[in-house]
Amino acid sequence: MITVRSFEEVRAASSGRIGLVPTMGALHDGHLRLLRTARAESDTVVVSVFVNPLQFGPDDDLDRYPRDLARDQGLAMEAGADILFAPEVVDMYPTDSHTHLTISKLTDNFEGAHRPGHFEGVALVVAKLLIGIRPTRAYFGRKDAQQLSVIRRLAIDLSLPVEIIGVSTVREPDGLALSSRNQFLGPDQRRAATALSRGLLAAASAVEDGERHGPHLEEIVAEEAGTEALLELEYVALADAATVQPLGELTTDAFLAVAARVGETRLIDNVAFSVDSDTVTVDRGELLSGPSVLEEA
Amino acid sequence: MITVRSFEEVRAASSGRIGLVPTMGALHDGHLRLLRTARAESDTVVVSVFVNPLQFGPDDDLDRYPRDLARDQGLAMEAGADILFAPEVVDMYPTDSHTHLTISKLTDNFEGAHRPGHFEGVALVVAKLLIGIRPTRAYFGRKDAQQLSVIRRLAIDLSLPVEIIGVSTVREPDGLALSSRNQFLGPDQRRAATALSRGLLAAASAVEDGERHGPHLEEIVAEEAGTEALLELEYVALADAATVQPLGELTTDAFLAVAARVGETRLIDNVAFSVDSDTVTVDRGELLSGPSVLEEA
Repeated sequence: MITVRSFEEVRAASSGRIGLVPTMGALHDGHLRLLRTARAESDTVVVSVFVNPLQFGPDDDLDRYPRDLARDQGLAMEAGADILFAPEVVDMYPTDSHTHLTISKLTDNFEGAHRPGHFEGVALVVAKLLIGIRPTRAYFGRKDAQQLSVIRRLAIDLSLPVEIIGVSTVREPDGLALSSRNQFLGPDQRRAATALSRGLLAAASAVEDGERHGPHLEEIVAEEAGTEALLELEYVALADAATVQPLGELTTDAFLAVAARVGETRLIDNVAFSVDSDTVTVDRGELLSGPSVLEEA
Repeated sequence: MITVRSFEEVRAASSGRIGLVPTMGALHDGHLRLLRTARAESDTVVVSVFVNPLQFGPDDDLDRYPRDLARDQGLAMEAGADILFAPEVVDMYPTDSHTHLTISKLTDNFEGAHRPGHFEGVALVVAKLLIGIRPTRAYFGRKDAQQLSVIRRLAIDLSLPVEIIGVSTVREPDGLALSSRNQFLGPDQRRAATALSRGLLAAASAVEDGERHGPHLEEIVAEEAGTEALLELEYVALADAATVQPLGELTTDAFLAVAARVGETRLIDNVAFSVDSDTVTVDRGELLSGPSVLEEA
């Protein structure tokens, strides 16, 4: 595996079917699953590690976001990456940059509403990665469900010749969705955080038992979150996966998403539903059998 | 030469060094010069013909903009194009498209101020063409000086691996810059329109004689335009070619641009200056020795 800093170097070292896994580093088993999926389907696997300042708001955790390139290099190599692309901020954003990308409607709600400017930052960095690296396929975690919808829209709207692949969320054995931010949680916060996945997985079971009403599904999650005093719920919503608009009934591909604060740390999670006429397939994510690389450390 | 409607077909038929000439059709000798330049430097020459509705405002001339694909095919083939890309509006813009591209600062003045939304439309269609066709080089006329500056900025900001080439304006023997809109001019309007290039070429000569003061150069153009009652001047301005901000003194690469209405028809023109320490090189454009393909018809 080589580590490079410019798009030119990535393109020069890539050939055949190129699989791209964009990350902000602090790699965990969720990223490793993306990398292994890319490895199985690509001739060249590129992983980008870039903490994108544009997608952090003034109140976000840009400064404390974990950074450890040497650790990421080891994990990425082990998972089969060929190229680690680690640009500096000045490489990605020249000081006289004046181009802005917005995706309307899909970014109005949920993360878009709670993190102003977030998706403009995501859209620009993802567009640059897809344009500069030219992957055949690009892999994104389904944990960031709204982001995945936004990126699918962006890729179509910009005529990007890339296939966007959503990969299931990976969960700790107790259900907590993997996130680089989990390492900020103290022991009590860590226990409280599992209420989010408990609620979502209960709602997923309700769907399998025939429940289709959005407000009922949302209520299941809110009630479970309400059992933990350390959790401050921001939203819970059933949303259309294509339009990212609130959905009253589960009649089309959708996700049930939740966001909450635990102390200083903001967590998001979701379960996804594929709807094919009367049949609903649930993606709960994958439970690890033992602690993730984040928790075993 | 083949004519195709999808990006997939363009990519499948392209190889080696790809030269792209984006146009809105109604080809004239200015476009043919772009095509011949591309032909000399490329293995595959792609010309796109697409009247982009997004770059026309409600008061613009979208409906009457000239369209004649058969004529364009003949001229493009003669000039050496390998692929003519002629998508329909529905191919380029799916109805659920929600992505918007804006370039701040560079679009605040001049054409950006007089045609609200124009450069957002230009930016999106040009980004899609550059992303979907993946040219090595893309060729744009210098007559649209602000557009060229915006596209150079866009290409850098999106990490597009393309070289943007500006090609000199082509002029009728009497100086009028070629434009697909010239065919709307009646004989008196056609005569009046030459005041624009007369003013610009006089200003260019003043620069060669040592004039560097923006307001003096602008005054030369405004005075000449003032001699024609049929001309309604919209603006005349010396602008920094990189930032597209008004320039008081000619101390960096710049263009002296003018826009005017002649009846229902809006015309723009400019002369460009390259500044290398004390030396200023002027690009006046190229005078045809006989009438263009537009006027001989």
